[in-house]
Amino acid sequence: MGLAENMVKKITIIVLGIVIWFLPHPPEISIDAWHLFAVFITTIFGVILGAFSILVASVLGMVIAVLTGTIDPKTAFSGFSNDIVLLIVVAFLIAKAVVRSGLGKRIALLMIKRFGKTTLGLGYSLIATDMIIAPAFPSNTARSGLLFPIIYSISIVNGSNPEKGTEKKLGSFLMFTSMFGIGLSSAMWLTAMAANPAGAEIAESYGVHIGFGTWILASSIPTIIAAIIAPWVLYKIYPPQIKDTPNAPLHAQKELEKMGRMSRDEIITAIIFVLLVVFWALSDTLNINKTIIAFLGLGLLLATNVFKVKEIKKEGEALTTMIWFAILYIMSSQLNELHFMDYVGNLMAVQIEFLPKQVAFVLLVFVYIVLHYLFVSQTAHMMALLGVFLGAAITLGINPTPLALMLLFATNYFSVITPQGSSCNILYISSGYITPKEVYKYGGILTFLSFIIYMIFGLPWISIVL
Amino acid sequence: MGLAENMVKKITIIVLGIVIWFLPHPPEISIDAWHLFAVFITTIFGVILGAFSILVASVLGMVIAVLTGTIDPKTAFSGFSNDIVLLIVVAFLIAKAVVRSGLGKRIALLMIKRFGKTTLGLGYSLIATDMIIAPAFPSNTARSGLLFPIIYSISIVNGSNPEKGTEKKLGSFLMFTSMFGIGLSSAMWLTAMAANPAGAEIAESYGVHIGFGTWILASSIPTIIAAIIAPWVLYKIYPPQIKDTPNAPLHAQKELEKMGRMSRDEIITAIIFVLLVVFWALSDTLNINKTIIAFLGLGLLLATNVFKVKEIKKEGEALTTMIWFAILYIMSSQLNELHFMDYVGNLMAVQIEFLPKQVAFVLLVFVYIVLHYLFVSQTAHMMALLGVFLGAAITLGINPTPLALMLLFATNYFSVITPQGSSCNILYISSGYITPKEVYKYGGILTFLSFIIYMIFGLPWISIVL
Repeated sequence: MGLAENMVKKITIIVLGIVIWFLPHPPEISIDAWHLFAVFITTIFGVILGAFSILVASVLGMVIAVLTGTIDPKTAFSGFSNDIVLLIVVAFLIAKAVVRSGLGKRIALLMIKRFGKTTLGLGYSLIATDMIIAPAFPSNTARSGLLFPIIYSISIVNGSNPEKGTEKKLGSFLMFTSMFGIGLSSAMWLTAMAANPAGAEIAESYGVHIGFGTWILASSIPTIIAAIIAPWVLYKIYPPQIKDTPNAPLHAQKELEKMGRMSRDEIITAIIFVLLVVFWALSDTLNINKTIIAFLGLGLLLATNVFKVKEIKKEGEALTTMIWFAILYIMSSQLNELHFMDYVGNLMAVQIEFLPKQVAFVLLVFVYIVLHYLFVSQTAHMMALLGVFLGAAITLGINPTPLALMLLFATNYFSVITPQGSSCNILYISSGYITPKEVYKYGGILTFLSFIIYMIFGLPWISIVL
Repeated sequence: MGLAENMVKKITIIVLGIVIWFLPHPPEISIDAWHLFAVFITTIFGVILGAFSILVASVLGMVIAVLTGTIDPKTAFSGFSNDIVLLIVVAFLIAKAVVRSGLGKRIALLMIKRFGKTTLGLGYSLIATDMIIAPAFPSNTARSGLLFPIIYSISIVNGSNPEKGTEKKLGSFLMFTSMFGIGLSSAMWLTAMAANPAGAEIAESYGVHIGFGTWILASSIPTIIAAIIAPWVLYKIYPPQIKDTPNAPLHAQKELEKMGRMSRDEIITAIIFVLLVVFWALSDTLNINKTIIAFLGLGLLLATNVFKVKEIKKEGEALTTMIWFAILYIMSSQLNELHFMDYVGNLMAVQIEFLPKQVAFVLLVFVYIVLHYLFVSQTAHMMALLGVFLGAAITLGINPTPLALMLLFATNYFSVITPQGSSCNILYISSGYITPKEVYKYGGILTFLSFIIYMIFGLPWISIVL
């Protein structure tokens, strides 16, 4: 990209921001809410247009928001102590330890031995694994912490490493597949994501009852279809350079033999990893904070010298990720706190009043998805908008049950619409295999593809089974 | 160190922690306060004994405190969004940018050209620079952000680099000298540290009036003596490998000629750096948060491509520093919140009731200093204990004016008693030139040396001039 072109982009973004800032704001929301919206949307456009990296855009966005008094410094910094943000940072470090111990390589080789004939096959096997463990694993972020080190190891074993510029060989595709897969596995089960039961409760207050059985019955067909079609589409539009690896299983077998028995470091890592998985899965039942479990894992890996302090000192990537994610997280939360999201939701609900019911239905789901561009948390999005949209639908005489299900499924699969759209994306992106800009593009495509699949296959299916 | 020896140390520390945990706690404080004290003191002993690195000890300490319900996760994580913690992280990154741009090298060469004949001379010149700018610079942490990149560059230029194992050549000594120097420059002026005016106000409520003039009059002689003696003592006990460099000034002159005119990156960095210094110095007057100023500097360095995102990705050191400092900061704050510090202060005050006044005076100052082992913030220490100690002294009939001054000066120079004793230490330590364990040793020596100097030279001087 030429210097001049980049300068034009930067100036465009800055002018855009200033224009939005000074536009007359709707009387229903405060001037601070409007200004924060101006900063936030400019930050996001800056990344989409490629004028700034996500780190630079976020830092400058926060500085402007604070210096103009739109948000106070304490609030602006509060994202850094958010436990989801810290969970991601620590999970990232744990993933590195899993790889360094050799355990990651071993699990990767075992998976390649079993599923490694084609890259697409590996992608499907990752989604399948995720789907199977998901109902017992109510934190999608923790699940990303579990899957990520395995995919990272598969990539490294196959010679696909962003540090060497070979990320596109195979890693980028697998990372993106699994990142999107987490959205699908979360849509599949009521208990696969923390926000799902909360969403079911909101629906209950609108007279829609969704239990574990209803959910899986309704989600099964469209989710399985999406899980089959979407990776294949991604494979076409975001192809791995290595596609067929007929000899990979045999090679993996040989490598496994070469590795021999598990080393001390591998055994310790395996024990700690199993401990983490068990505690994460039980964390809601036992009421233990997920982030402190991650810190426990990190502490044990360090105390046993499996992961060395000097190795962490190389992991600046975790820091940059923490900075931009903490900032975007707080900007979006504040926008929500200032009732900006409610306002937009209500506005949409009013606009569709005069449309035919079917069109209104489709539009409600579509707009609900598009609004995720403004959110950095799936849960916050659902809490802010699900009720507003269901209420509007009931006023219009739309049957709330299929709509509630469609919105709840969307809450999960729209995770990849932006890099910050879900905390599960962050590990994958911070790995260097996927750029934020790619997420805007391919994540957007996958989200709208899923929207179509759930509408075409999900709606008739729901009307049959429920 | 042998594996067995390290294992013995680890077990000793764990047993110690368990014993303190189960000791009967004084009825005046809550069981949570006692348990937190047990965790905190064990963490610190773990580092002093060398059983764990400061990162591992802190992470495990936090995990235990949270899992036992001693502190809740939200509180435990809150240090990560503390603005002093973030200021250090960002200042660390800015320092790296100053070095990478070449500006650091240029300033370093200019200083070497002028003062570089001996390493001790360089050390004195750093303290002198600090002393001169201090009265206009009310944040000692921001001042460390200003001095650190210069010292870092001087060390690198002289071939002293922790990444190459050559930190002891010259860098370690200069870093330690300047780190301690900040304590002295802060003790020198009422306006050189944010806590000083607050301390003067507390003293006022005990009938002691300390203005800008009184302060500098009282502090001048003992502080100047300490600034002369302490670096020399450090030079003897923690010597740089390179001592005399008679040709360094000439060499620096030649290097400067080789560098030629300032590059684009240097000019931009210089402008941003001056901007930072001006804003930091004026931040209290203009009521701008110091951390957001630092973020502004970082954002501009990144946006102008002087500092590249891929360079930040190598700076994992900033992340490890952030983790341990955020944790220790919060543990100490919580101990204070839970009135543990008050309790200890009061206990001491009662114990000395029957001692002769002179002995009581010395003991009060000494105990005030020793208690800094428990604090991670000079301001918090002063806020918690200054009033308690002054009150006790007045009850005993001790003249509160010299005591107030001695305690206020100590609040500044005891900064190096532990690695976490002041936020100004953190940049120096995270650079890799100084280990936390060295701070416990040499920082302790410098603190008690200063105690003696201020007592022997400061007290008579104060009785003459005030």
